[in-house]
Amino acid sequence: MAHNTVVTWTNEMAFDVELDGHHFTIDADEEFGGKNRGPRPKALLLSALAGCTGMDVVSLLGKMKMPFEKFALEVEGELGEEHPKVYTDIVIRYIFYGKELDRDKIEKSVKLSLDKYCGVHTTLAKSANIRHEILLNPS
Amino acid sequence: MAHNTVVTWTNEMAFDVELDGHHFTIDADEEFGGKNRGPRPKALLLSALAGCTGMDVVSLLGKMKMPFEKFALEVEGELGEEHPKVYTDIVIRYIFYGKELDRDKIEKSVKLSLDKYCGVHTTLAKSANIRHEILLNPS
Repeated sequence: MAHNTVVTWTNEMAFDVELDGHHFTIDADEEFGGKNRGPRPKALLLSALAGCTGMDVVSLLGKMKMPFEKFALEVEGELGEEHPKVYTDIVIRYIFYGKELDRDKIEKSVKLSLDKYCGVHTTLAKSANIRHEILLNPS
Repeated sequence: MAHNTVVTWTNEMAFDVELDGHHFTIDADEEFGGKNRGPRPKALLLSALAGCTGMDVVSLLGKMKMPFEKFALEVEGELGEEHPKVYTDIVIRYIFYGKELDRDKIEKSVKLSLDKYCGVHTTLAKSANIRHEILLNPS
């Protein structure tokens, strides 16, 4: 199966991204001639990772009938010093809120996603050391 | 340097992505329980690649004082068959329109981006065979 994106220069360092029929703007920050009219492109790798494993986990927990009230993922990526700068260390935090959270089911879902389903994890893990944390009802 | 993203589940398979202070929605397609309210997360890898090398090329052509009227990048990624599904073949098309296009300068900029600056290319090239084409004033 093939996926496509079209990324069109608008002005200065800003581009329009078309993906799956949706549009959003990306831009450089001021240091590199942009005006922060949208996110930086490289960091989209981290959002792709969060979204990919997040959707796996929602789907798996649905099959396991484990309800949650809120779910968020925080992903932090540390860039190397040398050009081309790639993410060398990544932390994924899976944060759940709910009254009936089952840590075993959550850990099983996360493990299945990272080991078996999430192609973004497999791709980024070739460059980065990726670790994860699971937080249940943090205050 | 560290980059961060927060990806928050909204409902069904949809999530809100926060990156660099900007927000957009991602969603699965209908086949996987989504409603296509935003793009698929994995394909954001292709948009990240286009944006990263596109910004490099705009910056380099600015320094080389090579004007263009329009510039777009099309990126196509072919997924492998086995889980976890990763992009195994990627094509980047750099498409320029203008009256004073200089192929040598464009080729030099693209080569510098892919060989030296674009960390997204370096990252994805560990899993995928990536090739590129440069199209000047295609009809």
